[in-house]
Amino acid sequence: MLCPRVWRAVRALSRDAAPRWRSFTTTTASTPDLSGIYPPIATPFTASEDVDYRRLEENLHKYAQIPFKGLVVQGSNGEYPYLSEDERLEVVKIVRQNLPKDKLLMAGSGCESTRATLQLTEKMASAGADCVLVVTPCFYKGKMDTSALVHHFTQVADRSPVPVVLYSVPANTGLELPLEAVVTLAQHPNIAGLKDSGGDITRIGLIAHKTSALEFQVLAGSAGFLMAAYCVGAVGGVCALANVLGRQVCELHSLCVSGRWDEARALQQRLIEPNTAVTRGLGVPGLKTAMEWFGFHGGSCRSPLRPLTDAQTQQLRSSFSDNGWI
Amino acid sequence: MLCPRVWRAVRALSRDAAPRWRSFTTTTASTPDLSGIYPPIATPFTASEDVDYRRLEENLHKYAQIPFKGLVVQGSNGEYPYLSEDERLEVVKIVRQNLPKDKLLMAGSGCESTRATLQLTEKMASAGADCVLVVTPCFYKGKMDTSALVHHFTQVADRSPVPVVLYSVPANTGLELPLEAVVTLAQHPNIAGLKDSGGDITRIGLIAHKTSALEFQVLAGSAGFLMAAYCVGAVGGVCALANVLGRQVCELHSLCVSGRWDEARALQQRLIEPNTAVTRGLGVPGLKTAMEWFGFHGGSCRSPLRPLTDAQTQQLRSSFSDNGWI
Amino acid sequence: MLCPRVWRAVRALSRDAAPRWRSFTTTTASTPDLSGIYPPIATPFTASEDVDYRRLEENLHKYAQIPFKGLVVQGSNGEYPYLSEDERLEVVKIVRQNLPKDKLLMAGSGCESTRATLQLTEKMASAGADCVLVVTPCFYKGKMDTSALVHHFTQVADRSPVPVVLYSVPANTGLELPLEAVVTLAQHPNIAGLKDSGGDITRIGLIAHKTSALEFQVLAGSAGFLMAAYCVGAVGGVCALANVLGRQVCELHSLCVSGRWDEARALQQRLIEPNTAVTRGLGVPGLKTAMEWFGFHGGSCRSPLRPLTDAQTQQLRSSFSDNGWI
Amino acid sequence: MLCPRVWRAVRALSRDAAPRWRSFTTTTASTPDLSGIYPPIATPFTASEDVDYRRLEENLHKYAQIPFKGLVVQGSNGEYPYLSEDERLEVVKIVRQNLPKDKLLMAGSGCESTRATLQLTEKMASAGADCVLVVTPCFYKGKMDTSALVHHFTQVADRSPVPVVLYSVPANTGLELPLEAVVTLAQHPNIAGLKDSGGDITRIGLIAHKTSALEFQVLAGSAGFLMAAYCVGAVGGVCALANVLGRQVCELHSLCVSGRWDEARALQQRLIEPNTAVTRGLGVPGLKTAMEWFGFHGGSCRSPLRPLTDAQTQQLRSSFSDNGWI
Repeated sequence: MLCPRVWRAVRALSRDAAPRWRSFTTTTASTPDLSGIYPPIATPFTASEDVDYRRLEENLHKYAQIPFKGLVVQGSNGEYPYLSEDERLEVVKIVRQNLPKDKLLMAGSGCESTRATLQLTEKMASAGADCVLVVTPCFYKGKMDTSALVHHFTQVADRSPVPVVLYSVPANTGLELPLEAVVTLAQHPNIAGLKDSGGDITRIGLIAHKTSALEFQVLAGSAGFLMAAYCVGAVGGVCALANVLGRQVCELHSLCVSGRWDEARALQQRLIEPNTAVTRGLGVPGLKTAMEWFGFHGGSCRSPLRPLTDAQTQQLRSSFSDNGWI
Repeated sequence: MLCPRVWRAVRALSRDAAPRWRSFTTTTASTPDLSGIYPPIATPFTASEDVDYRRLEENLHKYAQIPFKGLVVQGSNGEYPYLSEDERLEVVKIVRQNLPKDKLLMAGSGCESTRATLQLTEKMASAGADCVLVVTPCFYKGKMDTSALVHHFTQVADRSPVPVVLYSVPANTGLELPLEAVVTLAQHPNIAGLKDSGGDITRIGLIAHKTSALEFQVLAGSAGFLMAAYCVGAVGGVCALANVLGRQVCELHSLCVSGRWDEARALQQRLIEPNTAVTRGLGVPGLKTAMEWFGFHGGSCRSPLRPLTDAQTQQLRSSFSDNGWI
Repeated sequence: MLCPRVWRAVRALSRDAAPRWRSFTTTTASTPDLSGIYPPIATPFTASEDVDYRRLEENLHKYAQIPFKGLVVQGSNGEYPYLSEDERLEVVKIVRQNLPKDKLLMAGSGCESTRATLQLTEKMASAGADCVLVVTPCFYKGKMDTSALVHHFTQVADRSPVPVVLYSVPANTGLELPLEAVVTLAQHPNIAGLKDSGGDITRIGLIAHKTSALEFQVLAGSAGFLMAAYCVGAVGGVCALANVLGRQVCELHSLCVSGRWDEARALQQRLIEPNTAVTRGLGVPGLKTAMEWFGFHGGSCRSPLRPLTDAQTQQLRSSFSDNGWI
Repeated sequence: MLCPRVWRAVRALSRDAAPRWRSFTTTTASTPDLSGIYPPIATPFTASEDVDYRRLEENLHKYAQIPFKGLVVQGSNGEYPYLSEDERLEVVKIVRQNLPKDKLLMAGSGCESTRATLQLTEKMASAGADCVLVVTPCFYKGKMDTSALVHHFTQVADRSPVPVVLYSVPANTGLELPLEAVVTLAQHPNIAGLKDSGGDITRIGLIAHKTSALEFQVLAGSAGFLMAAYCVGAVGGVCALANVLGRQVCELHSLCVSGRWDEARALQQRLIEPNTAVTRGLGVPGLKTAMEWFGFHGGSCRSPLRPLTDAQTQQLRSSFSDNGWI
């Protein structure tokens, strides 16, 4: 584990090469308040698998009516690994144009190499992102230890024009950002928080504990453990289910932050099955199908993601109807 | 998944062979109230690795001063796989003799075969157990699907003279009792609850949700996710750490059930590291070493468990001292 | 990793306590020749789940006609975790009485604790075992590191009246005996070899390489990778499939040891699917069902193992018929 | 599982859209002979992490002296996830210019989306690839079932101007191309084979068995299980270690195909430790360090891959010196 002393030394070495966050941190409100709910928005496609920007805008207009804290653009549910760089940037620009001023735009900019991540981070900021969500590189997972990941994220945060949110999503990457890496990186002035999609509630509580003296914020990466995450110290959530049941997820946030735990529990329990269905269970195709049922444009996915089978669609439907949402 | 209808059919078939729980359930309070904290007590050994019954009794006298709901005898922390059947029964008898009347004695009686589990369950009840904790069989883990496990636990619960608590502990067994098995078994009148040591908080919330109409109680299997488990619907905890910091774990219970979540969070966060150290981190040797520091008899383990190295002892100590417990 | 020097030191320390293998090794042929094929025999039960010793004997008479090197009694396929100690010993005695003099009886004697393993090892030797197969303890798998396992097996080998064969079967135990532990233990004069059921052929080749100067023999734990194991240095196999297609597995052995690799390949390829069906695919219930088809007594398993469903039986049959065995 | 009938129907549906492989297969040698050894070449970088094309050429000149069947460009060891598309194509062009005419150029062209894979496949063919190596998409690993993967690879193979080699590398992708997908895809006339880096020798034998009537060739993805793979039916290997010990890996090929198994075994055993060191053990940084020792340009990796520590370098060196290679 890199202790703070080592980290400061690492930082000192890269100081000359990375002056930008310094100017950034001269603003009084260097660290944005991340608390609240974010849907990691889906990317609609046409029948020929092109990005359907018109339908995207229609979704954005509907989301503007829901008390979200902001939107995550190109989290895992946005099919970002299937988009070209041009498409990724264009989607962010469209979202920026359609997002109310008081909402936060968090854009995914993580790539496998540090160099590509740095380049995309700058472009995302130029396209209008308020902060960037940077996933752990994962292809060489056996080599992505604490040292390599601290180095990677430090390089990115040193040079990013906007605050960085760390992103750990082991279901997709096969890799969990180690706790000691999180705790070290939490001290960086340009790292604002962590989106944790792994769901290990003991770990989330410990991260909150070990970063409690810092301006570091933990976001739950799923509505399935959202209430429990608030309970142990998280301040918000990036929840696929918020694309479908946005008001309800925001209501769960309100109940938790106002200490109405009994009401929160009842609501949380009813959200688990639909949440599982649109995440681990049936993935992005499930999420997009459910979006259609609730008045949003979901549509098909890019290949190799396949449409749901009839049996899967029925299973998805049950997860909503069994809990009284349909 | 076995639906309730199937389960009732299965039950009907085995009715004649298993009349005993019926008489049990003629008492008005058929399902015991499990809510509260239980230490899964360690088994002290002499230098020659024999059970040290005297030291066990001394521990019991100290535990009697702590507001536990009861004790778990021969959970994973009791090194039960290393005890002979005679030793297992003798330990239960000793605990029974030394346990205040108002406390619950929950004894582990799970074996690999159904037949052996039935026999040991009866003997545990005769030795004084108020209820039995039955772990999932696991050697043939590839075959232990929902159907096999529902059949196993139904056979045991049908014939057990005392209520059964299901026990899922994947870190030891490599097997999680499937959610659909839990939900089916929750309907059995002689199955009182589940000790879930896996720590998947989404699962715990969903189990609480799907069994909310039944007299079925969920116990967290670790102090690491205890507060989160209460938050989503659990009623108590079987926590290795309660062998060491028993009053503090009981205090966390009180804070949770009385809705003092902010105080609970602060306490919970300070318990995570010592808890990890005495469970996943350093196991039973770590637990026993820490017990010594807090006035209990821990001592050595049976071989092949090895004593802590000096580095491990130091690591254990830090996990307590960093959080202000030493 | 324990280097040889450390191991010799460990041995020196325990010399006084463990004189027995010394007398054993005064015989000229201290290490038995393990090369060849062994069926890990199944345990037949009556309809009421009692051991059916008569049918066991009938199987033994049939096995006596097949050129096996010996029999493994109470490997994983013998449902040993479901047998009482008395039953385990009685089965070994029956096998001893019915086994031709020139065949080797290898009996499973591994228990979770070192003390119980030592006791059962002595009893197995008294009941007629020529050597014992000692599985890795696994309940506290997080603590079963190289140091703990080297200590455990050294204690057992020091005192065992008969040679010890190490047994690594991660599919059941969730634990692989570490390579460095194998290499250290291979130097013990009373440890004759390893049954490796994990199937990592790179590891098997490396173990053969690193023990090539010793009288240490590697047995493949499955017919699925038997030819490949010979190819990289194994000398035999303990193969569930040999309970069903014993002559064919022995033929594969002969082809490999006589260097007829092309014929061996054709036979090996036809054995993979039936082998998978009676091991990972359908387990002991699958093995016992297939035994019936080939003239042996298989019958039912002890609960919680369940009989095959019709669909599973059909799947099992296809795995044999598709490869021309039925 | 898609049966051949379904596959033919799928093919029929897409016939009009995918005429190109038809013309390809009118050539007499429709399926290239893949048998032999390929180093998956590393990509040298300058100190500033730019591709060092001059050093790449120097490596190629040295490789031209070794009896390789061909080269794999942008397999996992080429750090392809860290290269831009322009860099990837430029590297292939350089290799093409420097490769003797009789050697095969296999270029990695797999991307996450089908559409991007198709585009890159065409570009790789234009840049001079004789065939393409297409890795399984993996980000949405929970959705990459047999159906999705058969659809993906069929789309790619239908339109690829050059033959396709399937690529399964679970250590990087967290996903194994299912056996039933391999067997279905093996029937496609434009799919020439599989590079299997998972190392499950039972699976490799079964794939060879089930595709024995087809012109489908299996390549071992590592020198660690190369001999065993030949033994059960593979015809060649794509081996990171061939970047370092190219002649020796080619010698192992020769010994295996000429049936000199005893000599092969002795050589194979000595290659396991160095192979593990430059693959699973120390990854691409280990491979590149070892290349320097043997006269090739390795150099540093792109970030976030980190250089070896001194202890790791020593460990790497031992793996070669312990086996007599240094």
